[in-house]
Order: sequence, then C-alpha cells, then structure tokens
Amino acid sequence: MLLSVLQANAVVLDVDANLETIDSAAQRAAAAGSALLLTPELFPVGYAPLRLHSEFDPAALPGIRQRLAGIARTRGIGLVYSLPAPAADGGWHISATLLDAHGAVLLDYNKVHLFGGEERNAFSAAQVAPAVVDFNGIKTSLLICYDVEFPETVRAAATRGAELVLVPTALSKGFESVPQVLIRARALESQVNVAYANHSGHEEGCDFLGGSVIAGPDGALLAAAGNGPALLFAGIGTDTVRAAREEVPYLRDRRSELYGEWENLSQ
Amino acid sequence: MLLSVLQANAVVLDVDANLETIDSAAQRAAAAGSALLLTPELFPVGYAPLRLHSEFDPAALPGIRQRLAGIARTRGIGLVYSLPAPAADGGWHISATLLDAHGAVLLDYNKVHLFGGEERNAFSAAQVAPAVVDFNGIKTSLLICYDVEFPETVRAAATRGAELVLVPTALSKGFESVPQVLIRARALESQVNVAYANHSGHEEGCDFLGGSVIAGPDGALLAAAGNGPALLFAGIGTDTVRAAREEVPYLRDRRSELYGEWENLSQ
Repeated sequence: MLLSVLQANAVVLDVDANLETIDSAAQRAAAAGSALLLTPELFPVGYAPLRLHSEFDPAALPGIRQRLAGIARTRGIGLVYSLPAPAADGGWHISATLLDAHGAVLLDYNKVHLFGGEERNAFSAAQVAPAVVDFNGIKTSLLICYDVEFPETVRAAATRGAELVLVPTALSKGFESVPQVLIRARALESQVNVAYANHSGHEEGCDFLGGSVIAGPDGALLAAAGNGPALLFAGIGTDTVRAAREEVPYLRDRRSELYGEWENLSQ
Repeated sequence: MLLSVLQANAVVLDVDANLETIDSAAQRAAAAGSALLLTPELFPVGYAPLRLHSEFDPAALPGIRQRLAGIARTRGIGLVYSLPAPAADGGWHISATLLDAHGAVLLDYNKVHLFGGEERNAFSAAQVAPAVVDFNGIKTSLLICYDVEFPETVRAAATRGAELVLVPTALSKGFESVPQVLIRARALESQVNVAYANHSGHEEGCDFLGGSVIAGPDGALLAAAGNGPALLFAGIGTDTVRAAREEVPYLRDRRSELYGEWENLSQ
C-alpha cells in the first residue's frame, strides 16, 4: 500500500484555507496511487491551543468533519485528520480520525499525553489505549504528537496487533531527535511502520520543525521531509513487519508478566 | 565524572588473557582520569553460551571475582564486569556487577531478557527489575545486552532514579541500529546517560559488531567506537540529566497509572 504524509503550514482558524491544502494534497496523493493520506495535528483549524480554546466554535465541528469526509470520498483516498473533539468532562480532547476512501469513520483516538501548559489549559487528556482497525489489510492504529515520544503508547498499539501507527503531530524546531531518533526507535522496538506528519512554518507563536518521517519496522527511514511543505510517499506492507518479527521476536520476547509489576512498584 | 567503555575481543575460556585485557584497559582508563570502566557481556570468560554451559567450571567464579576486585583496587577505578552467576533454579544467570574503586560490590544485576536459543539453553532468565545505587554521586543502574532493546527496562531503571545505565553487551554484526538508534532513544526517552560496551572481532562462531556507544540524556552520542578494539571516554554528569528533564519532563508526564492496565488488557 502506498502511504502519503502531508507536511504543510496551516493558517490558524482559517478552516477554508486549511481544507483546501488537505484537498489539494489528497488529490495529488490519490493521483500517485496512495491509499491513505496522513495530515498533521489539528491541521484543519491550525495549531493554537489557547486561541482555539477562546475563539473556536465547537458547533463548527460537524460541518468540518463532513467536508473532510467529502474530500476522502471525492478524491477516493483514506484520510487521517486531527481536530478538537468533545470530552466527557465538558472540555475538549485533541483527537485523530481515520476515514476510509468512502469517507466513513474507521477509528477515532484521543490524545493521552498533553504537552506543556498551553495544551493542558486548553484540552483534557484522554485515558484510552490506542485501538487497532484493518485498513486495506494492514492493522492500523493512531497516536498524536507527544504520545509517540513515550514508548508505552506504541507498545500498547503493537500488543493490540498494530502493523502501522499513524501520528499527526505539531513539533517545534529544536526537537529534531524526535523524528530522527525516537520515531525510528518506536518503529524498530515494536516492529511496526510509523508515519509522523508535522506542520511546517510559523503558526501563532510557534515555529515548526517540519521533518516529517515514515519509518519501517526495521527502524529505517522510508521517507523524510525537510523544513518546508512536502508530500511524502512510502510503500507500507505487512511482509516487512513479519520479516522483522521473525528475525528478532521483540513482541514475543517481552516479559509482559513482569512489566506491570515493575511499573507499580516504581510508584 | 569521566567514564570509560572497553570494546575488545575476548578469548573463549581463556580467563587469564581476558583479565589481562581488562587490567590493561583499567590501567589506561584510570591514568586518563576515569572513575569507572564498563566491560562487555561475559567478557572474562568469552561470549560462548553453549561452551560455557558444557565446559566452564563454576567453582572458578569466586576466584575470578577476586581477581576482578583486585584489578579495581590496584588500578583505583570502579569496574563493571559480567559473568555467569548461580541461579535459584540450579542453573546460571548472566550477571553484571558494579565494583567501587576499592573492589567492593555495589550492585549486582541478572539478565531478564535472554536472546535466542543458545542463551536460553545455557542460562536462566531473571525477573528482578534493575536496581539503582549511588556511584560517585551519580545514580547508577545495570542492564545486560538484549534487555536494553526493550524500553521497559530502562524505564524501570529511570523510574527508580537512575541517571546512568551501564550495559555490557555481546551484539553481532548486522545490528548497527541497536547502538545507533535504540541506545540513543533509551537515553533520550528516559533522559539518562547510557553506556553500551560490546565485543569486537570473532568469538566461537559469532562476529561481533563493535560499535560501542555512550549516549547522553538528550540522545546525543558522546562517544562511539568503530569495529575494532577501542577504549571510549566521555564525561557523564547529573547536570545534563536535570537540564533534559526540565526542558521536557518525560518521567513526570508519563501516565503510569494507565500503563499497567494497558499492559494487562493486551494479554
């Protein structure tokens, strides 16, 4: 399966402009044969936690979701997008959604690890482990940004069967080691494909790194972006996942019966 | 604190030759001002699980340990060595021991994750989480080889307070991504120093990678060896650990209350 990753600059609270960017990328990706387009964290509304909290009208969310489903259906491509989503505590989660090429929702995920004071002031942290669904024969899961820096999250996806983990992100300049070291390690240590889609350029006080990557289950980079706008492509399969797990059976060799106890005793 | 890592070729079951290699490195390291020398997995006896199992006389162990303590004391340097050690089930663990510069034992650790059929036939896997002791003002822990490829192990050391994780290893050619990707990620994701000491050359059917590394708590390589014999040096501190944890508080931002449950639900 050919996978595409969009790296682009969003305009804060300009949904029309941002959906146009996604639509254009979806058209190009589908034309090149991609089955799935991954887009960055909160891209349709822009990454600006405090402004979203004070200025964004959640009543607009259903309409935005409909338009994103329309893009997937019109372009005939699966789509991962990230938006604010209502939380049970009355606040909002940062969410990610996987659509199939007909625009139907296959999977939702809410961010468990919020980063820094602004995100914590604007959003509520979720608690549910990443789930796994079949996408074109590949067991697929979602995480968001800071989540993937914690090995426990990709482990939770992999032990639930994931072969591909899709990660919308919003990562600032200065954190090059996240895509270049941590994402490669997440892919290798759990022997999954990991795609990581970042913003580029400047949004609301934040300079983004770009540097989006797609890593294979041996930890190799299958594709990597520079600092500017980019559309990445990589062939993603389950054969490489199987081969990696046969060579070194990390998931089988885990001592899972010990880890829960180790975790609890450390508290 | 200056830390040294020995990368060398052991001679299987030639304890005299291997202790001479360690003593020579300890002398050089101490002369350069190092407070601690890390040596590879099972180096005093050579890495050869099945031959050790059939030919090595465990009655020799106390004498070997005394000679290693003598090296530490004579050269005036802390020492990490790895040997077989008796297990409660009547078999042997693969162990690692941290000595102070007087030759006194500060910490023992037994390998939890055995690699492949030969190790499993020759040794018993341990179950105890890595412990932490103070070494020259740095909270120090031990892991062995395959252990460190599992993020759960360094996490267990870090949540118990470790600032430095010392890892004797025996890693074959073809696994360059372990030191170059996983060790850097272990250091970065738990914001600890990690030193990884490998064999070089050929021992009993195995071609070793070399490639020993010392990584800092920001994931950067402080020192890295090529394929041949080497003695690495790096300055290790707690100030870089504190700085990294202040910039991005990974350990504080962990959702430890969720991970045990996630682990159990995945079984």
